[in-house]
Amino acid sequence: MIYVATQKLPLPKESSSLDRSSRREDSRARLVRAGTEMLCEQSYASMGVDHVLRRAGLSKGSFYHFFPSKEAFGLEVIKYYADHFDRKLERILDNQSTPALDRLSTYVNEGIEGIERFNFKRGCLIGNLSQELGPVSTVFRLALEDVFQGWQAYVARCLRAAADSGELASDINEQDWAEFFWIGWEGALIRAKASASSDPVRRFSSQFIRVLPKSSTI
Amino acid sequence: MIYVATQKLPLPKESSSLDRSSRREDSRARLVRAGTEMLCEQSYASMGVDHVLRRAGLSKGSFYHFFPSKEAFGLEVIKYYADHFDRKLERILDNQSTPALDRLSTYVNEGIEGIERFNFKRGCLIGNLSQELGPVSTVFRLALEDVFQGWQAYVARCLRAAADSGELASDINEQDWAEFFWIGWEGALIRAKASASSDPVRRFSSQFIRVLPKSSTI
Repeated sequence: MIYVATQKLPLPKESSSLDRSSRREDSRARLVRAGTEMLCEQSYASMGVDHVLRRAGLSKGSFYHFFPSKEAFGLEVIKYYADHFDRKLERILDNQSTPALDRLSTYVNEGIEGIERFNFKRGCLIGNLSQELGPVSTVFRLALEDVFQGWQAYVARCLRAAADSGELASDINEQDWAEFFWIGWEGALIRAKASASSDPVRRFSSQFIRVLPKSSTI
Repeated sequence: MIYVATQKLPLPKESSSLDRSSRREDSRARLVRAGTEMLCEQSYASMGVDHVLRRAGLSKGSFYHFFPSKEAFGLEVIKYYADHFDRKLERILDNQSTPALDRLSTYVNEGIEGIERFNFKRGCLIGNLSQELGPVSTVFRLALEDVFQGWQAYVARCLRAAADSGELASDINEQDWAEFFWIGWEGALIRAKASASSDPVRRFSSQFIRVLPKSSTI
């Protein structure tokens, strides 16, 4: 998946009326959001705690007040990013008022808009970290694979809806096709970076939808 | 693509009879090979010149004797890796004595063997660097996309051979399908890391071959 949208965490404004616990929550949320933006664009290895603090506009030392380690922080960032995408996937792919295959196209089109908005600079945080940390950290690897499995469940449900409504063949294996979609999507994001273009994502998605087994009765 | 095979560059043995120029070539080749191995496993940002020298078994200072910059070195590593894969793709996919789709399966199976041999730790150097450097360096980006285009040409030629021999539909757009293959392949390598399993590569490849448009006359 890609691109944390420009929508923001509900951060309270700095004000003398804020009590200590909401300021504390504010700072923690700022750190997580800063980390999320950074890990969409750069490697975990190159993300220094100092940089996160600077991006969040917080003073040195506050990081370890909120997180016991960089790893704990990284896992929190994954959770924030995954929650964000769960809401997006639910909004689009579970939308019963739209034909199921149109929902998938809407998801693809929003993804392409995101790629273009960030000028092909941002990748998928989950794909990025899988690439970098999958081989070296079991804790991260399991968290990342868990996110992929969750995303696949949304697409599988959407494909099943398409099969039930006659848009796709009723005997489609929606789990296999959902995995195929996410595999290709992550690969297409890499190629978008290499080509500085959203065309690979567009072409992959069109081809994917074209080859889905259609119902023979329509 | 994945996995620089265990085959070695033809390095001459250290010997007092070696003249200066061959020792020089030896050291340069050691550096490139060390860098290639490292960039299959870790990020460019985290690959220090000192580490490369240590891995190559060379003394400090010799790096800049051979390469004007880390960037020049990185580009040389890409070239070495790409040349290696060009030879592999040519050996397998241009092998006229085997039916074309079997060649593609052979390529996939060799890839899976590599993934398993390195215990899901190594990724595709070109995919890794596209992820990391595509957005930040035009020089790298263009070199990386060029490699992808070259790889696609091999697969496209193989698919065209399959179409000409009647294994696939004669009107197949082999360029589109070749791009689709490499997009999915790179994505599958990411998922192999996240799941610590070659299953995503196996499932993607099987599905890809299954959905290729077959000739209606056979």
